[in-house]
Amino acid sequence: MTDIRHTPDHRNIDIDRVGIKKLVYPLVLRDQKNELQHTTAEINFYVDLPRELKGTHMSRFVEVVNHFRGEIDLRHIDEMLDYARDRFSAHTVHLEMTFPYFISKSAPVSGAEGLMSYSCTIAASSRSGEESRSILTLRVPVMAVCPCSKQISDRGAHNQRSVVALSVLTNEFVWLEELITLVEKSASSEVFSHLKREDEKYVTEHAYDNAVFVEDIVRNVAYKIQSDKRIDWFSVNAENFESIHSHNAYASIERDLKSDRRGS
Amino acid sequence: MTDIRHTPDHRNIDIDRVGIKKLVYPLVLRDQKNELQHTTAEINFYVDLPRELKGTHMSRFVEVVNHFRGEIDLRHIDEMLDYARDRFSAHTVHLEMTFPYFISKSAPVSGAEGLMSYSCTIAASSRSGEESRSILTLRVPVMAVCPCSKQISDRGAHNQRSVVALSVLTNEFVWLEELITLVEKSASSEVFSHLKREDEKYVTEHAYDNAVFVEDIVRNVAYKIQSDKRIDWFSVNAENFESIHSHNAYASIERDLKSDRRGS
Amino acid sequence: MTDIRHTPDHRNIDIDRVGIKKLVYPLVLRDQKNELQHTTAEINFYVDLPRELKGTHMSRFVEVVNHFRGEIDLRHIDEMLDYARDRFSAHTVHLEMTFPYFISKSAPVSGAEGLMSYSCTIAASSRSGEESRSILTLRVPVMAVCPCSKQISDRGAHNQRSVVALSVLTNEFVWLEELITLVEKSASSEVFSHLKREDEKYVTEHAYDNAVFVEDIVRNVAYKIQSDKRIDWFSVNAENFESIHSHNAYASIERDLKSDRRGS
Amino acid sequence: MTDIRHTPDHRNIDIDRVGIKKLVYPLVLRDQKNELQHTTAEINFYVDLPRELKGTHMSRFVEVVNHFRGEIDLRHIDEMLDYARDRFSAHTVHLEMTFPYFISKSAPVSGAEGLMSYSCTIAASSRSGEESRSILTLRVPVMAVCPCSKQISDRGAHNQRSVVALSVLTNEFVWLEELITLVEKSASSEVFSHLKREDEKYVTEHAYDNAVFVEDIVRNVAYKIQSDKRIDWFSVNAENFESIHSHNAYASIERDLKSDRRGS
Repeated sequence: MTDIRHTPDHRNIDIDRVGIKKLVYPLVLRDQKNELQHTTAEINFYVDLPRELKGTHMSRFVEVVNHFRGEIDLRHIDEMLDYARDRFSAHTVHLEMTFPYFISKSAPVSGAEGLMSYSCTIAASSRSGEESRSILTLRVPVMAVCPCSKQISDRGAHNQRSVVALSVLTNEFVWLEELITLVEKSASSEVFSHLKREDEKYVTEHAYDNAVFVEDIVRNVAYKIQSDKRIDWFSVNAENFESIHSHNAYASIERDLKSDRRGS
Repeated sequence: MTDIRHTPDHRNIDIDRVGIKKLVYPLVLRDQKNELQHTTAEINFYVDLPRELKGTHMSRFVEVVNHFRGEIDLRHIDEMLDYARDRFSAHTVHLEMTFPYFISKSAPVSGAEGLMSYSCTIAASSRSGEESRSILTLRVPVMAVCPCSKQISDRGAHNQRSVVALSVLTNEFVWLEELITLVEKSASSEVFSHLKREDEKYVTEHAYDNAVFVEDIVRNVAYKIQSDKRIDWFSVNAENFESIHSHNAYASIERDLKSDRRGS
Repeated sequence: MTDIRHTPDHRNIDIDRVGIKKLVYPLVLRDQKNELQHTTAEINFYVDLPRELKGTHMSRFVEVVNHFRGEIDLRHIDEMLDYARDRFSAHTVHLEMTFPYFISKSAPVSGAEGLMSYSCTIAASSRSGEESRSILTLRVPVMAVCPCSKQISDRGAHNQRSVVALSVLTNEFVWLEELITLVEKSASSEVFSHLKREDEKYVTEHAYDNAVFVEDIVRNVAYKIQSDKRIDWFSVNAENFESIHSHNAYASIERDLKSDRRGS
Repeated sequence: MTDIRHTPDHRNIDIDRVGIKKLVYPLVLRDQKNELQHTTAEINFYVDLPRELKGTHMSRFVEVVNHFRGEIDLRHIDEMLDYARDRFSAHTVHLEMTFPYFISKSAPVSGAEGLMSYSCTIAASSRSGEESRSILTLRVPVMAVCPCSKQISDRGAHNQRSVVALSVLTNEFVWLEELITLVEKSASSEVFSHLKREDEKYVTEHAYDNAVFVEDIVRNVAYKIQSDKRIDWFSVNAENFESIHSHNAYASIERDLKSDRRGS
């Protein structure tokens, strides 16, 4: 019996992406301290489909994921993309993995250790005849003290948790840890999972002394990123869960640094 | 052809609830100012099913909802429950509707108007031979300034948006507006959608002067609710989106006031 | 006292978008039957911010929304964008509103009426000196019967709910109803909120006779959209909640029809 | 300086639960095949707070979690509860952990391997002077073919993914794998991550031959659970993502088997 997916298609339309979404899978990473990190990912996996083919082989996506041994290592992404392109005879392959990434942080005064988790996404694409490229996204919770509230008030200043999402396209390897630190230094204060009394005093005062608007956060990130030659493109947004409103404050900046460099 | 749902079932097991979930539907409410309010609800609708019946009539749930004219009015809930119990020959009927409820609020100094939305749920149950009962849940965003951070810090105090969820079982009509105000007065400050500079100053200082732990918020709500004779049972929880952490702080209290009153 | 937002900024970085997110608000629409439809929206509202300004006026976003009378009508979007650009002295304004849109549908055999809701988004942008443009997105639930499962099985065929998201940029007015119908005709069957026994038989058999892969759904939509001269650009994706897997099947196509037309 | 949390409280209200929510953390499990399984959990952690204390020590929750080595093993839960009760001088402790649990499954005909993930929750409570108790919840995706649609239609039958949530309170150790299998055997078919053509044929026909209503799924689970002497209480619900509707079908059963046994 002929596989119906091999019958010709008369609509004459190429499909940009076809594949699977929301496959939950274990993942192994190696972090900057050279330690093995086990986490779990939600995986999307796509190929293109030329106009002459009616359907792709959906089962092969899971087969490719399984082929990489039940626990995927980030250092095998290029290998996975190549293997998949070959297995599907595809022109392009897209692999997206979103996972919590864990970093142990010390509290600023007591030095008490606490594990922080950061939601990260790797979106890797491979096109035949071209080098593969990965967009790395990290979502970093930070603290934002409002400069306006501080200026006009006799005491206190409203502040809130903010989540900064930074996406970068790099031409050279960059550690997640570097980017996370860069973002954390762009807000009023970084946040911690474990703070003792003396740390809470420090964080409160340090944040109060470094009041920033949501506009400042994205500008601070952009300012530092734009001079990093390893980064060709970035997009950053910050969303403040305003403590005085039930809606959020938001700002975003996107720049094609590669073009900007060529232009100058 | 016999409807398969009418064949006998040999497992001999009553079903507590069977019906539909996540039907999105328009809703009409009358608010305390006697104004008509149009909103949208997510509806769950269930009946019990005795052991001798294999299946319920799923299409009738939507039929009952449609019967009430495309736009459901909260004042018709008892009528809907009765109609449904009759239509299904059911012993019990459960109707849950979750919707945003809008209230116009004035900023504390400038008086500037702004519309606030509160996510509310009405969970109404009717049992044959008994009076129907409704549990009303409201989720109220508020501002919480940390008393500890304020006490130990030379300047500032970390604060955050908190969401307080209050559920009540009443023996008499209570306006949503009353309960929302009660919750808003239990935190460091209520929040607003529209604040001018002078309002922001007021809210910042007022909140700073009324620092509360997450524990205080639920105790303040419980303290006021427990002396309200119209309320037979309540449950309250508060979740603070801590600005110094990426996890939340939480507290909850539940009391059966009717039993407590009988006991005393 | 000088407003801190008016102090100069030395980082020299323009901000693409700054504003508010997730404001819940009532909305009024006029549907194709010329009936008034009340619904609720989640609103995002942004302006650009030139490098020389430190901060925007966050409270003005809510002020502009309130200015349009508590219930926003889609026909006033251009007016809102102009008013906002003026109020902020901004170069660009972006307004995004996501809301359920209700359409009454008749069951295919019995003609029984039932209300369907479709999640829609209007993303409108206005730039000084240019015409405003709106991208309309609709998310349409449909039924997808797998052609492969049908072909290889002696009886039955796995099928599932699929959600098709279609975004269009138009050069002329197009009714949401037209686009929803176009998408519904591209799957195995449209779905309904209210079906009697005779309708369920019809839908089951009709869907079985019109088996489509997730690839077919997006190609069918693309095929019809690409010949519509009112549409300059579109993006369509379909996500099948596979009944035989716990992950989803997905396909997407995006085309710049305006460029394609110029090119041909 | 006195810690403000140690000041007396005059509202005279005990708090049922106070603590932290949504801490993301690595977790280590040992599965039935005696293999180590690394996963990630979202953790909630609470204690009670007597009326005479104003506030709890929020930082200690993270301290206790960290004390258990960065990677929590389920076999240490009792130890964690005891340690926490001691650390807080609390009467009751509650620990909730929600995590994906991975099981390798073979396709029914080809035997092809594929990893499935199941969202599970352990809610463990400890009260001084009593044995600790854990409620185990598992969410199992299955396939449901509609018996009514099958009966009335000349060809095909609508079917869909369903998610069955089973919670149990046990008096003896029960493997997650046992409960997952029990639920999977209660539907039209279990679902798989990896199916070849011959498997898809088998699953389609097997499911068609085992059509079940949402009512049947919960009754089948209840029927098997109620005769298991290791289980003192259970609650089961099933939610079918109907392929012919955009709302879901739902059924639920809860039973206190321990009381039932005493009563009989």
